Amino acid sequence: MHHASDILFTLFIVFVAAQIGGEIAQRLKLPGVVGEIAAGCVIGPSLLGWITPEQIATGTPLDVLAEIGVVLLLFSVGLETRLEDLKKVGKVAFLVGVLGVLVPFGMGSVWAHGNGFDWDKSLFVAAAFVATSAGITARVLQELNALQRTESKVILGAAVIDDILAMLLLGVVVSMQGGGGFDLSHLLVVLAGAIGFIAVVGLGGARVMRWNSGWLEKPLAPHSPLMIVLALCLGLAYLSTLFGLAAIIGAFLAGMIASETRQQHTLEKQTMPLLALLTPFFFVVTGSKIDLHELASADALLMLTVVTVIAILSKLIGGWLGSLSLGKHSATIIGFGMVPRGEVGVVIASLGLAAGVFNNRIYAIIVAMSLLTAMVTPPVLAWLLKRTASAEPADQPRI
Amino acid sequence: MHHASDILFTLFIVFVAAQIGGEIAQRLKLPGVVGEIAAGCVIGPSLLGWITPEQIATGTPLDVLAEIGVVLLLFSVGLETRLEDLKKVGKVAFLVGVLGVLVPFGMGSVWAHGNGFDWDKSLFVAAAFVATSAGITARVLQELNALQRTESKVILGAAVIDDILAMLLLGVVVSMQGGGGFDLSHLLVVLAGAIGFIAVVGLGGARVMRWNSGWLEKPLAPHSPLMIVLALCLGLAYLSTLFGLAAIIGAFLAGMIASETRQQHTLEKQTMPLLALLTPFFFVVTGSKIDLHELASADALLMLTVVTVIAILSKLIGGWLGSLSLGKHSATIIGFGMVPRGEVGVVIASLGLAAGVFNNRIYAIIVAMSLLTAMVTPPVLAWLLKRTASAEPADQPRI
Repeated sequence: MHHASDILFTLFIVFVAAQIGGEIAQRLKLPGVVGEIAAGCVIGPSLLGWITPEQIATGTPLDVLAEIGVVLLLFSVGLETRLEDLKKVGKVAFLVGVLGVLVPFGMGSVWAHGNGFDWDKSLFVAAAFVATSAGITARVLQELNALQRTESKVILGAAVIDDILAMLLLGVVVSMQGGGGFDLSHLLVVLAGAIGFIAVVGLGGARVMRWNSGWLEKPLAPHSPLMIVLALCLGLAYLSTLFGLAAIIGAFLAGMIASETRQQHTLEKQTMPLLALLTPFFFVVTGSKIDLHELASADALLMLTVVTVIAILSKLIGGWLGSLSLGKHSATIIGFGMVPRGEVGVVIASLGLAAGVFNNRIYAIIVAMSLLTAMVTPPVLAWLLKRTASAEPADQPRI
Repeated sequence: MHHASDILFTLFIVFVAAQIGGEIAQRLKLPGVVGEIAAGCVIGPSLLGWITPEQIATGTPLDVLAEIGVVLLLFSVGLETRLEDLKKVGKVAFLVGVLGVLVPFGMGSVWAHGNGFDWDKSLFVAAAFVATSAGITARVLQELNALQRTESKVILGAAVIDDILAMLLLGVVVSMQGGGGFDLSHLLVVLAGAIGFIAVVGLGGARVMRWNSGWLEKPLAPHSPLMIVLALCLGLAYLSTLFGLAAIIGAFLAGMIASETRQQHTLEKQTMPLLALLTPFFFVVTGSKIDLHELASADALLMLTVVTVIAILSKLIGGWLGSLSLGKHSATIIGFGMVPRGEVGVVIASLGLAAGVFNNRIYAIIVAMSLLTAMVTPPVLAWLLKRTASAEPADQPRI
């Protein structure tokens, strides 16, 4: 009669660990998200083992809750982002996205080749240096109430470009393994599909909502606008995976569409408790994937340090060059905003392990690098953002 | 890079099916929950097969989301329930709880014995007639804005008593299988543990919160009161399973404790979006467990009808007799409020199947009976509640 006891314990532990970690981080003047990731590392398999590797594998309840958490996070970020504002920063965001992919890919493949990988394998390793995970940066920007700054718009726009390019790059790199070539026409179809999806959904959806959002209140259910946009969020998150994009891109689009409705303010308030319950699962699960045992040697630590420095510098340089037209300080904020690889790097590393390109150690190092970039960014970003007032005339206070 | 695609599709389908089902039900002047359960039946394995039996097995992501949904539902019901109000109806609730267990257990075991079961097996079958699932009734009462009525307080109090007794009864019945006796002293320990848990947590927690709830705002995290009570909800849900009780009993206690805080009103508003996102999973998953194939014969349908009528009548009579002191109309509302067996009956049936007491057909019939009582109750309850104003001086409007 009383099943589900174990999973309730796990949910409780994860949720409480996130709160304690977040509180400690904030007392230390760090962004709360750093504490949540650290809490995951502490209660995860590497240290306390209160959550096991089986519990955070793909498709497990914790993994799905984490996925829902990050989907809702990007949805809420979209809710605070107007399409018009993104369009204004379109050119800069495009440059940041492109250079933020090319520089890490170049530096990553040179490093990998220098460390004894064949060129085709080096390109796979380099792919793990590429994809920015928007979740970490989005959370920091939201925590610091900075989503209305120009730099934030550039980062969010660039994250969309980044995800498209990273997807294409990964497709090319995977097809090249074993010395095979790749199919350019197929690649162009994939590219056109992804861009078409984003354009049709983003532009079309925003136009429909701006034109009339009264129909959201037609259903009899109380809070029907929330129900409809949540359905939209889940639906677009799914659809974007069909086009080869990350689920969070679809969720971000759904939020951006919902930001054009006249219920936007209510929706923003209603989304807050959903984030409060579910995003801790994402950050704790992310942190729990750090495998400290594989890194417990001087060699491994040295390699990790080098890889992490390359990963941070290359992304910073790419983003900085792309946004230099906004001034050096803004360019630095944007460059750092693109640094976190987070769960995207973890997923590419898993693909590499499955494909036999990575051994266990390089896998652990790439995973640790992805998570270190996620840990390092929030404090730096917070410090940079606090140093200057916004370039915008006024920050809108969040409620 | 783009995992979790399948599960996102399932989440989308379940969520949208719940909204459509709820909307149709409400247009037909039925409670929305009926439509959500029916939607689960339609998209479940019996009809469309968009969700498979593997996807709703214990411990799967959908099952866990359903569990979180019903836990949050009972938490929110607790948030609208003051301990003082429950105490006022304590005696009636106790009588309703006890008679609501004894009458179905008696009638169920007589029916099972009359249908060829040995007495020890008959008692197991009868145990599946016993346990009320508070989730369905709670949702109807909440939908109809009737949680402040005296009848609602009695039903909620009785549901707690019911769960304690059902747990004890199941313990006895399981230990008696194979002709073994049972250990009375062990039983008394279990009883004392469950009552002690509820008393200490309920009385102690409410007292702490009434005395001072300012500390909920001490943490730096925004919305810290919500975070703390959500942690309390998950923690008590887990703890109550350790004492052999349903997770929803602990969640209800957590809500009741939180209702004594001065942040109660804010918490109530913040809980709403959580219910909106997560309770649909509970009702759709519940509905998807109806196996129409096993019931597709005249014999099976006849047996199902008889079993369902006994299940409804016995609970109605027990609850009615227990609350007759409140007048016949209130007693009828309370009696019907106790009728739904919902997921609790399903779980007992699964135990019976695993223990070899039930064959596939009797299993399917007990499951269908549990779900039918859950389907039949909401419209009747809605009709009964709308027929009379509350016995209370004034219903508090919900915001």
